[in-house]
Amino acid sequence: MTFDSLWDSLLDVGRDPASGGYRRFAWTPTDFTLRDWFTGEAQRRAMAVEEDRNGNLWAWWLPAGVTGDPRAAFVTGSHLDSVPDGGAFDGPLGIVSAFTAIDLLRADGVEPRVPVAVVAFSDEEGARFGVACVGSQLSTGALTPDRALSLRDGDGTTLAEALRAAGRRPEHVGADPGLADRVGVFVELHVEQGRALDLLDQPVAVASAIWPHGRWRFTFCGKANHAGTTRLADRRDPMLTFATAVHDARTRAADHDAVATFGKLRVTPNGANAIPSRIEAWLDARAPDEQTLRALVGAITVAAERDAGADRTSVRVEAESVSPAVLFPDAPRLRIQRTLAAEFGDVPVLATAAGHDAGILAAQVPTAMLFVRNPTGVSHSPAEHAEIADCRAGARALALVMRDWVA
Amino acid sequence: MTFDSLWDSLLDVGRDPASGGYRRFAWTPTDFTLRDWFTGEAQRRAMAVEEDRNGNLWAWWLPAGVTGDPRAAFVTGSHLDSVPDGGAFDGPLGIVSAFTAIDLLRADGVEPRVPVAVVAFSDEEGARFGVACVGSQLSTGALTPDRALSLRDGDGTTLAEALRAAGRRPEHVGADPGLADRVGVFVELHVEQGRALDLLDQPVAVASAIWPHGRWRFTFCGKANHAGTTRLADRRDPMLTFATAVHDARTRAADHDAVATFGKLRVTPNGANAIPSRIEAWLDARAPDEQTLRALVGAITVAAERDAGADRTSVRVEAESVSPAVLFPDAPRLRIQRTLAAEFGDVPVLATAAGHDAGILAAQVPTAMLFVRNPTGVSHSPAEHAEIADCRAGARALALVMRDWVA
Repeated sequence: MTFDSLWDSLLDVGRDPASGGYRRFAWTPTDFTLRDWFTGEAQRRAMAVEEDRNGNLWAWWLPAGVTGDPRAAFVTGSHLDSVPDGGAFDGPLGIVSAFTAIDLLRADGVEPRVPVAVVAFSDEEGARFGVACVGSQLSTGALTPDRALSLRDGDGTTLAEALRAAGRRPEHVGADPGLADRVGVFVELHVEQGRALDLLDQPVAVASAIWPHGRWRFTFCGKANHAGTTRLADRRDPMLTFATAVHDARTRAADHDAVATFGKLRVTPNGANAIPSRIEAWLDARAPDEQTLRALVGAITVAAERDAGADRTSVRVEAESVSPAVLFPDAPRLRIQRTLAAEFGDVPVLATAAGHDAGILAAQVPTAMLFVRNPTGVSHSPAEHAEIADCRAGARALALVMRDWVA
Repeated sequence: MTFDSLWDSLLDVGRDPASGGYRRFAWTPTDFTLRDWFTGEAQRRAMAVEEDRNGNLWAWWLPAGVTGDPRAAFVTGSHLDSVPDGGAFDGPLGIVSAFTAIDLLRADGVEPRVPVAVVAFSDEEGARFGVACVGSQLSTGALTPDRALSLRDGDGTTLAEALRAAGRRPEHVGADPGLADRVGVFVELHVEQGRALDLLDQPVAVASAIWPHGRWRFTFCGKANHAGTTRLADRRDPMLTFATAVHDARTRAADHDAVATFGKLRVTPNGANAIPSRIEAWLDARAPDEQTLRALVGAITVAAERDAGADRTSVRVEAESVSPAVLFPDAPRLRIQRTLAAEFGDVPVLATAAGHDAGILAAQVPTAMLFVRNPTGVSHSPAEHAEIADCRAGARALALVMRDWVA
């Protein structure tokens, strides 16, 4: 099976016909379709599939004669879920490339000497329950079962309820003590989410680091009242305080050479003729180092508190998830660079501001990442794009790395 | 049946247990419960109930011996629906008071010489489909059937679909040519939505006018992109333009001695790690006269367009509903003031910035309004309140007016 046909088989799943974007959220019917797709592709390749206690899917290609639990495996993959109205590439490209790499090795008659797995981590984007990388964070213990299971989606459904409705057993989620033994290395291939490769005129890069980043929920509270009959002087309108914070976040991000974004809101009661009582706004902030990130979010918080006082509103800031900086280890990266040199020359080494399951796993196992060129840099958008020739090159690079590791 | 017990019988319908506010939206199960309540109260009083082609409910108390269509009736009532998380009084107080007034007249043995009706107008707040006073606007022809039926709620359901699902016939909605003949006067009792009566230490007022007011949808468009990996300089973030407009609207409203509020938002894609592609924001604006309202909304629009240019976003402004100023006619108001003088003394005369079905009907029939004191002025909020003694006084005033008109 070629990369192209495998890629095409996913294109219709969870696509919104109006926007062309994807809405692939954890533990929804679309997610079940994606999981069935994964299982089908594994079975087509005679790979045994298991879903671990946290909903992550593993498909195994084992050396002949190996029995018992696989150890020190070469693991590759990514995630199948998307942000709201996301692109086709963010996540699925890594999984399609992983299956394609196996196909390429098999076409060459390669027999693995170490176990190989394709993994699809559950709920990487956090689009439904608000916390990113839930599957990988549960497995490494970075997210506790209590905290994860009590996360709620926009309809008030908890993750525990969603898991139970999906026939899973929420009482079983939690850290995977066998992870470090099972995974020898995790290599995640991902579409680039900036324009660095385009500017360098290269199809593929390896990752050096992930910026520290996080998500903070700002809850601005005021007093609901009639939008027509309440005098301006009598109002306590949290929309004003929020609006000030939007500009403040942008200005301070520029001052810190960082990024900060309010992209998600929940307004209560959200009536056209009612002054809001409450605005929940999620701040996404990322910076080159942890000290800068702390300083940035601290400054935005202090300014919001000061402005709330002036507006007779209030603001409460809660960290929903904060990921420290990840420095990918030298050893696997240098080995990948050497492996790719013959076909790809000097492969660029890039840092990224985007979080990934590879960043979560890096706390416990050797990890590396490959990036595939994104000609516009656009991501988390229906306009996200990569050229098919670059995608094929990425799968080919992953196959070279896999072969080097397992043959 | 006393005012108190009738009032209490409604308190649990559509109340959110968490906030204590009401979510009584048109053509939902809660609305059906309210309609059943209305029908039950009418039947308990041997009043014939009809639902007109636009979903408005009419309960009739006819003079003995009158047959055929009622003419020149004394009509009183209001609406049963609410804004999201609204209060108990806005709307229902007028209907409970109307039934109570009939009970008071009957307790005194009054036989009406002209027809009396209690009316519950459908979808006054517009909380579900975005346009206020749908029932009364359809009946007067102010809203065309085509426009009304194609309105969509937040889930994409059209009013036509909602009506059909409720067993109604959307092809029948439209102007009611018999309205002007049927209604001799419409008197709507309503909780005050400001603090004027409290400051005057009076329980009841009559209305002089309704400020011109309207609802405009601002659609800010930018470009969705990854909140982590997109450089600030490359962004086209409509949240910035919206935030500027929030403050601009407040400043210009103050300059015009008017009010302007952004209280409802829809953010697309509304992902915590995505720069939004689109922000729809509803501006509610009201002013003492139409020229000021036009100038205010025009100035906010021009400023938003200028700011959008600077932010490399765009903005489109559409009027969703604009209600001209209503000057209630002198004749019924003066008659009401004379009627109430003996018990209530000089009843205050107030203008209001809130729209009402009485304002819509004023285009075709004589209308008047009674306001009941609101000690905090809070409305469109779970904290909306009126003292029970003032509510009883309002019902008593309405009974005096009804008796003067019909006995």
